[in-house]
Amino acid sequence: MKYYSYEDFKCDTKKLLLNVKAFEAEVIVGIARGGLTLSHAIAEGLDIREVQTLRTELYDKTCKREMLSIFGDCNFQNISRVLVVDDIADSGDTLKAIMEHLRAKYKNIDFKATTLFYKKTSVYEPDFWVNEADEWIDFFWERDFKVNAL
Amino acid sequence: MKYYSYEDFKCDTKKLLLNVKAFEAEVIVGIARGGLTLSHAIAEGLDIREVQTLRTELYDKTCKREMLSIFGDCNFQNISRVLVVDDIADSGDTLKAIMEHLRAKYKNIDFKATTLFYKKTSVYEPDFWVNEADEWIDFFWERDFKVNAL
Repeated sequence: MKYYSYEDFKCDTKKLLLNVKAFEAEVIVGIARGGLTLSHAIAEGLDIREVQTLRTELYDKTCKREMLSIFGDCNFQNISRVLVVDDIADSGDTLKAIMEHLRAKYKNIDFKATTLFYKKTSVYEPDFWVNEADEWIDFFWERDFKVNAL
Repeated sequence: MKYYSYEDFKCDTKKLLLNVKAFEAEVIVGIARGGLTLSHAIAEGLDIREVQTLRTELYDKTCKREMLSIFGDCNFQNISRVLVVDDIADSGDTLKAIMEHLRAKYKNIDFKATTLFYKKTSVYEPDFWVNEADEWIDFFWERDFKVNAL
């Protein structure tokens, strides 16, 4: 397990921004919770004022396979390019479902996805990513604020 | 102008969590962009899965006074307590408008607000806050990711 510190995040997010900025996204859709801090950083870095969020939940439907529900509604007015932001494409199920959902609903918008980490076994490869994940990532936002650790 | 580092944030957010946790919020509503990183940290710290976001925009209506618009829709199902999160209550206009909007729309939900900073001149005092702001705060998320600084 690798602890991913704020300093790591700061360095990687700067690398990511250099690649992402050419896309000229007008809106960021952050995936809660994991993508919230990165969404904020990218929005500030690229001076994008509009950040919307979606949230997914996994649940066992019939003990056979997991179902994924998407919560939240986006609202795009005269928007051409949207950047979808999450922390990691691990299984890739969340990102795949969200990208399909958005592309089906908003056919005239160009959606691209970005994450900090990408696992080779993910079913979806983000357009922009920084690191390949080969072990469990312990993100600073998951570690640093635990009430038990207060 | 004071640079507010991630280390400052980590320390203050832990203090905030100790006060906020007794409220037992079920949902977090983060105010974009400023409240996004704190929303993420609080959600992780208190193990709240549901984070929704709202966004405000100020614009000059008639050169007489600024108007504030709220963007985004919340969706609360069987929810009793919601924590509204922003970085700072400066003028307090944003927080005041959002709290009034939410309380008018969802009369049976208990809404409380939290920020890291509170300015004595704010028109709205959050239920929970850590620091009094007496100068301009340069939050790390506003400083650390500027493309010009890459």
